[in-house]
Amino acid sequence: MFPNAIEPFIDLSTGINPYPYPAPEIPSDCFFRLPDQASTGRLAAIAAQSYGARSEDYVVPAPGTQILLPQVAMLVAPGRAAILGPTYAEHLRAASLAGHSAKEVSDVDQLRSADLAVIVNPNNPDGRIVPKAELLDLARDLRQRDGILVIDEAFADVVDSDISLAGDLDCGNVVVLRSFGKFFGLAGLRLGFALAEPHLATRLNALLGPWAVSGPAVFVGAKALADTAWKNRMLEHLADAARRLDGILAGSDLEIPGGTSLYRLTRSSGAQQLFNHLGHAGILVRRFAEYPTWLRWGLPDGEVAWQRLSAVLASSPKAP
Amino acid sequence: MFPNAIEPFIDLSTGINPYPYPAPEIPSDCFFRLPDQASTGRLAAIAAQSYGARSEDYVVPAPGTQILLPQVAMLVAPGRAAILGPTYAEHLRAASLAGHSAKEVSDVDQLRSADLAVIVNPNNPDGRIVPKAELLDLARDLRQRDGILVIDEAFADVVDSDISLAGDLDCGNVVVLRSFGKFFGLAGLRLGFALAEPHLATRLNALLGPWAVSGPAVFVGAKALADTAWKNRMLEHLADAARRLDGILAGSDLEIPGGTSLYRLTRSSGAQQLFNHLGHAGILVRRFAEYPTWLRWGLPDGEVAWQRLSAVLASSPKAP
Repeated sequence: MFPNAIEPFIDLSTGINPYPYPAPEIPSDCFFRLPDQASTGRLAAIAAQSYGARSEDYVVPAPGTQILLPQVAMLVAPGRAAILGPTYAEHLRAASLAGHSAKEVSDVDQLRSADLAVIVNPNNPDGRIVPKAELLDLARDLRQRDGILVIDEAFADVVDSDISLAGDLDCGNVVVLRSFGKFFGLAGLRLGFALAEPHLATRLNALLGPWAVSGPAVFVGAKALADTAWKNRMLEHLADAARRLDGILAGSDLEIPGGTSLYRLTRSSGAQQLFNHLGHAGILVRRFAEYPTWLRWGLPDGEVAWQRLSAVLASSPKAP
Repeated sequence: MFPNAIEPFIDLSTGINPYPYPAPEIPSDCFFRLPDQASTGRLAAIAAQSYGARSEDYVVPAPGTQILLPQVAMLVAPGRAAILGPTYAEHLRAASLAGHSAKEVSDVDQLRSADLAVIVNPNNPDGRIVPKAELLDLARDLRQRDGILVIDEAFADVVDSDISLAGDLDCGNVVVLRSFGKFFGLAGLRLGFALAEPHLATRLNALLGPWAVSGPAVFVGAKALADTAWKNRMLEHLADAARRLDGILAGSDLEIPGGTSLYRLTRSSGAQQLFNHLGHAGILVRRFAEYPTWLRWGLPDGEVAWQRLSAVLASSPKAP
C-alpha cells in the first residue's frame, strides 16, 4: 500500500495490546499430544473465574472468537439479525453466512424485534458502552420471541468489569464472547471463549468438536488468565499509554469521540490525507470506508514508536 | 480407568506418529500478531504441493480437520448422509449435527444414493483402501444428484500417494481432508486442511473466517510440509516400526486383519481380557464398543516402550 514508506512499519491498525503477556516456555507435549479433556476443562474453569461466569459449564473454549461468530449465529434458525452499528464488520458477515437477513441498526430499540441481536460492548471503534440494565431488558424482550442476544466483549478486559454479562447467563438466551489474544497481546495463539448457559454452551461445544483449542493455547491461556497481578499492572500501563496517545492526538487538533485504552478513535475532516501522510512515513492506522472522517489508533509498542508517531503527526499538513 | 497400573503409561490408543517432527524454534511474532494472509497463503501453497492439489486456491487451512467436519457436512442442504463403516465415529456425529439423517453403511454402492457420502481412505482402523477409480465413479454418480463426496485422507501420508483424490478436485463435488498432526506427530498444534475445487474452498474459507489457523501452526506447518527429506526418512522408519509391531503381535497369536504403518488392528476372541491385561500393566490400546474382538495398536515411542510391550504381551493369558 505504501511501497516507499519508512521502515520498519509501525502497525497501529489493530486493537491488540502491543505489550504482550510474557509467554512461559511451552512444554513439548503441548505440541505432540492432543490436548486432553482435563487440561481444557481446567482452562475453562480458570476462564470462568477470570471473566466472572458461574462455572466451567458456562465456558466454551475456542481457537479464537472469530471462528465462533457463524456458529453462534447458527444457534437460532435463519431469521432476522440486527447488529448495533457502526461496529466490527464480521458480525454482519457471520449472521449472513448463517442464513439470516442481517443489517446494522443504530439504536438498541431496533434490536428488540430481531431473532439474533448483536452488541459489541464496549464497542469497536468508538468505545460506546450499553449499560447492563439495558442489555438485560433487551435479553428479556428477545427471550419472549426465542431470540438470542450476543454480546461481544472482545475489549471488555480494559473497562469496568461491571458492564459484563458473563455472570448473567441463566436467562438462557445470552452468549458473551471474550477474546484472549487482544488484551494479552497474543493474537497469533488463537484463543477465545463463548460464555453461555450450559445448554447453549453444550450446543456450541458440539459444533466445535473435541480438541478445538491447541495445546499451546490451553497451556498459555491457563497461565495468563490466572495471573491477576499481571492483569492489574497491565490495566494501569494501558490507561497511561492511552492518555499519552490522547495527548499527542489532541496536540494535533484531532477530536477524540471515543475508544478504549487499547485503541482511540479520532474524527477530522482531513482524515484521509492524514492516513496517507502517516502511511508514507511508515505508520499504519485503521480507516473506515463508510466513515471517511474516522481513524482508529492502536498503541505504539515502545519509545521509538512513540517518538516517530509524535514527529510524524507534528509534521502533518493541517486540515483546511 | 486403571488406577493401580504401572507408570509411566504407554499410550498406544491413538494413531499419532510418536516420532514427531523436530519443531523449529517459533518466532515470538507468531504468538503476538494475527497470522497475515501472506503467510497463511504460503502455507496453503506448500500444502497444495505436498498433497498434490493444483494450487493454493484448492486448499483450506484449518485448526485441525475435526473442526471442519460439521462445516463440510453443511456444504449440502440437510438430506441423507452415508458413511462407509466401520470407521472414525466423528463423521456420523458431524453429519447428524449438520442436520442430515446419517448412517454407516458397509458397501460403497450404498453411498451412491446419498446427499453426503463419506469415505475414510485409508480407513481407520482397518486400513481398507478404496481404489481411486471407484471413488471417481462414485463422485460422478453423486454429482448428478448434487451430492458431495468427502474423502478423509487423515492417514494417507503413509500409503501410496496414488490413492489420493487431492489432484482430482475439478469435478467440483469432492472434498479431501488431510490431517497435519498425525503424520508429523504434532497433534497438539491443531492443523489440518480441506482440499476442494476453488468455489467449494471459498465457501469453507468463509465459514472459518480470517485467522482460523494459529501463528505457530502456520510457521511449523510450512516448514514441516516442505521437508521432503524428513518425510521420506519417516516413511521408512514407520514402515520398519509397523513390521516390528506386527512381529510382536503375531508372536502372541494375534490375527492382524489390517491397519496402516501408524496403527495396526488385531482381531482375537480374548481382546477384552487382553485390553485389561495391558491396562493393568500400564499400556493403553484402543478398543471398539461395537467390535469386541478388535484392538487398535499405535506405535511405541522408543526402546523402553517396545520392551515393555513385548514383555507384557508375552505374559498375557492366552485366549481359550
